[in-house]
Amino acid sequence: MCTHNAAKRELFKVAPVPATLLTNARLATMTEGGTPYGLIENAAVAIEGETIAWCGPHDDVPAAFKTARTVDLDGRLVTPGLIDCHTHIVFGGDRAREFEQRLEGASYEEVARAGGGILSTVRDTRAASEDALLEQALPRVDTLLREGVTTLEIKSGYGLTIEDELKMLRVARRIAEVRPVRVRTTYLAAHTVPPEYEGRADAYIDDVVLPGLDAAHEAGLVDAVDGFCEGIAFSTAQMARVFDAARKLGLPVKLHAEQLSNLGGSALTARYGGLSADHLEYIDESGAKALAEADTVGVLVPGAFYTLRETRLPPLAVLRREGVRLAVATDCNPGTAPLTSLLLAMNMAATLFRVTPEEALAGTTRNAARALGLSDAGVIAAGCRADLAVWDVRHPAELTYRIGFNPLHTRVFAGDF
Amino acid sequence: MCTHNAAKRELFKVAPVPATLLTNARLATMTEGGTPYGLIENAAVAIEGETIAWCGPHDDVPAAFKTARTVDLDGRLVTPGLIDCHTHIVFGGDRAREFEQRLEGASYEEVARAGGGILSTVRDTRAASEDALLEQALPRVDTLLREGVTTLEIKSGYGLTIEDELKMLRVARRIAEVRPVRVRTTYLAAHTVPPEYEGRADAYIDDVVLPGLDAAHEAGLVDAVDGFCEGIAFSTAQMARVFDAARKLGLPVKLHAEQLSNLGGSALTARYGGLSADHLEYIDESGAKALAEADTVGVLVPGAFYTLRETRLPPLAVLRREGVRLAVATDCNPGTAPLTSLLLAMNMAATLFRVTPEEALAGTTRNAARALGLSDAGVIAAGCRADLAVWDVRHPAELTYRIGFNPLHTRVFAGDF
Ligand SMILES: [Zn+2]
Ligand SMILES: [Zn+2]
Repeated sequence: MCTHNAAKRELFKVAPVPATLLTNARLATMTEGGTPYGLIENAAVAIEGETIAWCGPHDDVPAAFKTARTVDLDGRLVTPGLIDCHTHIVFGGDRAREFEQRLEGASYEEVARAGGGILSTVRDTRAASEDALLEQALPRVDTLLREGVTTLEIKSGYGLTIEDELKMLRVARRIAEVRPVRVRTTYLAAHTVPPEYEGRADAYIDDVVLPGLDAAHEAGLVDAVDGFCEGIAFSTAQMARVFDAARKLGLPVKLHAEQLSNLGGSALTARYGGLSADHLEYIDESGAKALAEADTVGVLVPGAFYTLRETRLPPLAVLRREGVRLAVATDCNPGTAPLTSLLLAMNMAATLFRVTPEEALAGTTRNAARALGLSDAGVIAAGCRADLAVWDVRHPAELTYRIGFNPLHTRVFAGDF
Repeated sequence: MCTHNAAKRELFKVAPVPATLLTNARLATMTEGGTPYGLIENAAVAIEGETIAWCGPHDDVPAAFKTARTVDLDGRLVTPGLIDCHTHIVFGGDRAREFEQRLEGASYEEVARAGGGILSTVRDTRAASEDALLEQALPRVDTLLREGVTTLEIKSGYGLTIEDELKMLRVARRIAEVRPVRVRTTYLAAHTVPPEYEGRADAYIDDVVLPGLDAAHEAGLVDAVDGFCEGIAFSTAQMARVFDAARKLGLPVKLHAEQLSNLGGSALTARYGGLSADHLEYIDESGAKALAEADTVGVLVPGAFYTLRETRLPPLAVLRREGVRLAVATDCNPGTAPLTSLLLAMNMAATLFRVTPEEALAGTTRNAARALGLSDAGVIAAGCRADLAVWDVRHPAELTYRIGFNPLHTRVFAGDF
């Protein structure tokens, strides 16, 4: 699967680059079908340029890499760089005061009357310049990067006008220019119906969501298309209109589905061959079957479950039985998950949802890559990008077990230390 | 209340030390009875040596400090240095594999047969040298310090022999020698009955807990005495024996009380004028009244509640109504709360227990200091220690609102930056 870069090199006859050999590593390759975590003890990884050229037991290092520059990892654990496949990390303002008002006893209505709720984020995002949005997002991004994140999905969805949605996506793209991280953008104008279209969701889709998608795609700002399918947001019929438009443009889709009720959003996403259906607390067996059949990833976002104090758990037994691939993400957003730790999301997925540490790590590596349509990331294998995380831990389960602790030793991004 | 250092200086006629003036600060002094958070805008703090010499609105800076070295804080928020008043941060080994086995479906019995549970931590702690325990604890301590913690309580309780309990306490003391943090030690031999005394808790108290307390006190290793009062551990009658011994030595007491059932541990602690009763999920009105009357702090430890997926909430309305002072702590331990973020404990206390952000911050400053018997910390006031945290946030509620984010800008420990 990971032959993308090798093929490219062949195509362009790129000159050989100096290699680096990481030695004395414990590799959690996260490749499927072998040992738990794809573990290889006493292992080495050869990196050429941005790419993993070879990995395996140290005794098998090919002669070509024996003269490479060597970095001794002293027995440390190496995993693929982490991938946060569901974030709303670009937004204006914060909602700390609203959080406080709610805990002081204010009702949702009182908070809304005081200017709170998602519409306050829309207002602050619209009012902010591109530079201001970037400046506010970077400390959050940096926090994720310090935990070994090398790929980050970023959604629009707080602009809700064509220009403001494009502004958010431009900020998302700029993050990848000013920080060593790969960014995948997702167009989420169908996040909520803005006040100026209250009660007229279809008109909002006609006037903003669809033309905005064309404009954003034209500007090269869209890697995938998303929506919030829920009673309080958009119906499956409305989402199908958006997905049809995405399909015409050749863009993959994903969906916030089955978070607060079961509208059949997962099955809809599967019908469009979607990359992922996210949340899934209310998914049923037929939805799980649809995801498995379409190989659409199920993304668990326990941070929102935690913050909202939900009690309905995603039906893990059903998802496992049907063979749905599971990812885990922060859902970083100012309202329902002001969470900037992917390791903590893994712990929450284990503690609250009962995923195993191996499922949690697959959920932020191999399966998170699939949820973003990336075939060159999420595992340690020849031909894949050299995006790695080196950890001061002995066993990969420690990454999920600890709470509020960052054992990252070194982050490798596209071969760079 | 905070005249301790001023008095000392008077006593020893210490020569004047050069002063530092922090300017352009937003102060959350956390003093009682004034504005929320004790907020002062456009404020300044004068530091002399290890002590806060003055604080207040910038316009009121006394002439004596106008020539001091100035540090412009650029409008940042300053709080008292955070205080984690309940930790078991010194221990051997880790329990990641046990965490994984449980999530893979192993029962408690199977985990125990495989050598897991608290007794595995006892085994690993007994087997570890003092140096090894120190080395293992420091990364956890450093994580807390990076979040602005300046005072840390550390309990023994995994040795369960006289020598191993003393070893743990010596490690706790050494932490304060090798890191800029104040440590308060707590003797917790009455944590659990070790296997060699199974079914003979009173004999364990006679043979180990009481003589160990004498020895540890003799060695200057004990600031307070604690126990685990629960059906699976020690009864109130047994704890009373331990508390009587503490009283004879003039040592204050505290107790793990009402975590899994209501045995009346809080009332017992109050009868001994205890510093704190910790956990409190099962406390009732009479227990709360007893705490309030004795001015014994109630310490909330939401990390254990979260990890154990408990559902019984501490009765916050009752505790508030009776006027119990509330603190919040990590309970950092390898089994029920492998948590090393006090900010996250504050968020969990708010999200899971519904404390307000102001209560959460009082719980890790003013009231946490009381839970440790410290009268010179936990608030920003003249005469108190210059233990401060400077944050890149605008409003103090942000400290509790965010999840897995560390906005610390600068930590000031005993006047040192
Ligand atoms: Zn989302
Ligand atoms: Zn404890």
